[in-house]
Amino acid sequence: MSNVLNDFKSYLKQISLYEQVISLIEWDLQTATPEKGVHAKTEALSHFSTEHFRMTTSKEYGQMLETLSQPEAFDTLDDVMKLTVKRYKRDYEKQQRIPESFYSEFVKTRALSQKAWEKAKKNNDFASYLPHLDKVISMVKEQLSYTDPGEEMYDALLDQYEEGVTCDQIEKVFDELKEGLVPLLKKIAANPRPDLSNARGFFSVDDQKKVQEMLLEYIGFDFDAGTTAISAHPFTMDMAAGDCRVTNHYNEDWAISAMFSAIHEGGHAIFGQSINPQYEYTAAAQVNLMGLHESQSRFFENILGRNKNFWIPIYDKLGEILPTFKNVSLDEFYRIINDVQPRFIRMESDELSYCLHIILRFEMEKAIFKDGVATKDLPELWNKKTEELLGITPETDTKGILQDVHWSDGAFGYFPSYLLGSIYDGMFLQVIEKDMGSLDVILAEGRIKEITKWLQGHIHQYGSQYISKEIMERLGAGELSAKPLLDYFYNKYSKIYNLE
Amino acid sequence: MSNVLNDFKSYLKQISLYEQVISLIEWDLQTATPEKGVHAKTEALSHFSTEHFRMTTSKEYGQMLETLSQPEAFDTLDDVMKLTVKRYKRDYEKQQRIPESFYSEFVKTRALSQKAWEKAKKNNDFASYLPHLDKVISMVKEQLSYTDPGEEMYDALLDQYEEGVTCDQIEKVFDELKEGLVPLLKKIAANPRPDLSNARGFFSVDDQKKVQEMLLEYIGFDFDAGTTAISAHPFTMDMAAGDCRVTNHYNEDWAISAMFSAIHEGGHAIFGQSINPQYEYTAAAQVNLMGLHESQSRFFENILGRNKNFWIPIYDKLGEILPTFKNVSLDEFYRIINDVQPRFIRMESDELSYCLHIILRFEMEKAIFKDGVATKDLPELWNKKTEELLGITPETDTKGILQDVHWSDGAFGYFPSYLLGSIYDGMFLQVIEKDMGSLDVILAEGRIKEITKWLQGHIHQYGSQYISKEIMERLGAGELSAKPLLDYFYNKYSKIYNLE
Repeated sequence: MSNVLNDFKSYLKQISLYEQVISLIEWDLQTATPEKGVHAKTEALSHFSTEHFRMTTSKEYGQMLETLSQPEAFDTLDDVMKLTVKRYKRDYEKQQRIPESFYSEFVKTRALSQKAWEKAKKNNDFASYLPHLDKVISMVKEQLSYTDPGEEMYDALLDQYEEGVTCDQIEKVFDELKEGLVPLLKKIAANPRPDLSNARGFFSVDDQKKVQEMLLEYIGFDFDAGTTAISAHPFTMDMAAGDCRVTNHYNEDWAISAMFSAIHEGGHAIFGQSINPQYEYTAAAQVNLMGLHESQSRFFENILGRNKNFWIPIYDKLGEILPTFKNVSLDEFYRIINDVQPRFIRMESDELSYCLHIILRFEMEKAIFKDGVATKDLPELWNKKTEELLGITPETDTKGILQDVHWSDGAFGYFPSYLLGSIYDGMFLQVIEKDMGSLDVILAEGRIKEITKWLQGHIHQYGSQYISKEIMERLGAGELSAKPLLDYFYNKYSKIYNLE
Repeated sequence: MSNVLNDFKSYLKQISLYEQVISLIEWDLQTATPEKGVHAKTEALSHFSTEHFRMTTSKEYGQMLETLSQPEAFDTLDDVMKLTVKRYKRDYEKQQRIPESFYSEFVKTRALSQKAWEKAKKNNDFASYLPHLDKVISMVKEQLSYTDPGEEMYDALLDQYEEGVTCDQIEKVFDELKEGLVPLLKKIAANPRPDLSNARGFFSVDDQKKVQEMLLEYIGFDFDAGTTAISAHPFTMDMAAGDCRVTNHYNEDWAISAMFSAIHEGGHAIFGQSINPQYEYTAAAQVNLMGLHESQSRFFENILGRNKNFWIPIYDKLGEILPTFKNVSLDEFYRIINDVQPRFIRMESDELSYCLHIILRFEMEKAIFKDGVATKDLPELWNKKTEELLGITPETDTKGILQDVHWSDGAFGYFPSYLLGSIYDGMFLQVIEKDMGSLDVILAEGRIKEITKWLQGHIHQYGSQYISKEIMERLGAGELSAKPLLDYFYNKYSKIYNLE
């Protein structure tokens, strides 16, 4: 039996080496590959992805999983290996039902769809993208017919990104949030907005990189276990044990955007860097719990980064690197980074409106997978729902349904993770303050790394050993609820906007 | 038959995808991997290198090569495919005689040896490195007993890096050069050296990067087919069709070093970027002719870059980016970049002393592989030969035998390529001036890209379709000879140092 276990471990290691080079190729494509080299990199990506698919659907692999699932073997495994066998066996059974020809076709369809989306977004031309989106949706449905036959489609999609959470549960907390948020946003809208002009200027990429380095160091990013690069959109790449990287994108006339991207991606990366190294090559080291992952990036970005006290110990340093901010008082800065105003673009939205952006996408995805709304009717529905939720109507599809990359890549069911993350954050915040006292005080005293350490010790180190629900149980955080997040919002924004 | 050819082509494409990821991992290790990620990257490198070895020594591959070598198949192939089958069959026959266990062991031994070398160089401790170097040398010999049984060992090593050139031929031209150079260096030494102090200052990495970009653009580097990064030592990585990259290393108090590294690596990269794209996945796209490759980097670095006229069109721009050079006249700058003085370190040496550094290494390698000098006696021999050739004796082994990485990695036979490259450059220069007129005039008029175009058209586009000797024949450049290089040296340095 120990032979099978050893073979299994060495097989997992091999799979992980393929995952590492796939990540490396993707990293390179987005941060370094020159235009004429894209073709060769794409060929390599397709080859090694197909090899990876073969390895994770091979008979040999299935046989090892089967053997190790039998009680006489299974009972001898340690907890992490039990979880690995269970989770990978479940994935294997789903994956190996996908015909290889369908898999390759789907990879190609998504690549073409992404290119069509880029073009359509640029030209505000939904019509040219419609057939691609339509094909992707029908192939997502076909894939579900292999992997999750007889299951409610949208539940199966949501489960891919946040195991153990159903559509009904999400609906309940999202509705709770919507009810609380819409009136709050109306009250805020009746108040004057901060003047942003003092925070504008010219900020060189090199100076903004220095700010990023300062911020990453401040929140506890480990530069021995990660690096930084530039890409069109900021992202985090968890490449291998001891190697979790972030990118950023810099606007030369508005530095605040890259600062918060740095903190956001830094949060993701600290999670990846802090997973117990002994979990290498096991399922626990792979965090597909995107709600949990987003909770960490958004905790750093919003709960910490958009708190005035976060900046007290470093605001002078910021002014030294970017002298524009010497002419912006910390109070003014605090109002600017919490400027609430409904915007068309999710990624440009404030902390509050952002939630409604996600609810919009969640409702759109339900319309597609539960109500069977035709693809051609989606732009109209998008605009109608934007009006309902945010009180504004997109001027163009580029500022509406075409703004996000996710659907072009078939990633339906991902969006709710962002907001689940924030909902978790409200719950974490309560536990942390119970454990450690006032967050404001800890931040103001420059003890932010104690919070990072708390998150590492209570969440990060476990990787995905516990799903989000189990983490909450272990923390005694109670049932999934939007109330703590709403309390945090009301408390914070009542003060900023002097609401009654 | 056409089925075999198609299978062969698709097999070559697969091999090249493995080569691409191996290059990518190496690139990443040297430019981006954080300390804690080195382990995972090294694991991946070892895995994919072994897979590559298996693919290039498999029975299936051997059978395809055998079938395509039969006259009825071979005669139907085009020229490049004929060359590919011939060259790869030769390599296959050598490689498949290497036991896989020996191959893996040798990979590991070299990795350990490189680490031991780094440490020994840092601590000036040859003794600790001796057993590693000794083992590498004996494994190189063992490998030769598989790949080239009965052959003269050093000829076989030289052939790996510059096909078609023997030890005797190299000896002849190196001796010719030594005879001419030693007296020239003595004459120069009797003259005053330029004052370097005006060229010192503080040069930020960002500013030096701007100079690099200016220089690369100037000489014709294609930024759509390459990119730049920072590493401990500058190198060029020919990663795939349309993707040939360079790195650099910046000293903040001396900018000239990185300028010439930029031009040198730029020369390598322009070669790689200019290979006929239709040669993708064939032997012609792989340039293992290191003498020819170095001839291109050294042509750009020395023949062009150390010519005063190269700088006339861009010297003001240099001063704009690095104001220190506004206080250095072009005449002064020209003398500084051609400051001749024997130095211990090859990579810090001037154009003339550099040649003697290579001759030193060539003679050392002959001592090892032809005369069987014991490894423990090498440091003494190194110092003795340095005294003979350069008139100086290394103070330490760090500044002597421990200075270069090559031997720790088993790369014996590589060094002569650098000087062969310069010897070829002398010959190319004659042909170019016959074709296009005075190089000085072309450069002074800012028409350097015409020279780049000539090199691309007469050399680069062919990749390794022709070996160096054939290139020379096609250009009517005559037999291999050091005379053109010596003529160039005497002509140039007599003027700079006002020799009789």
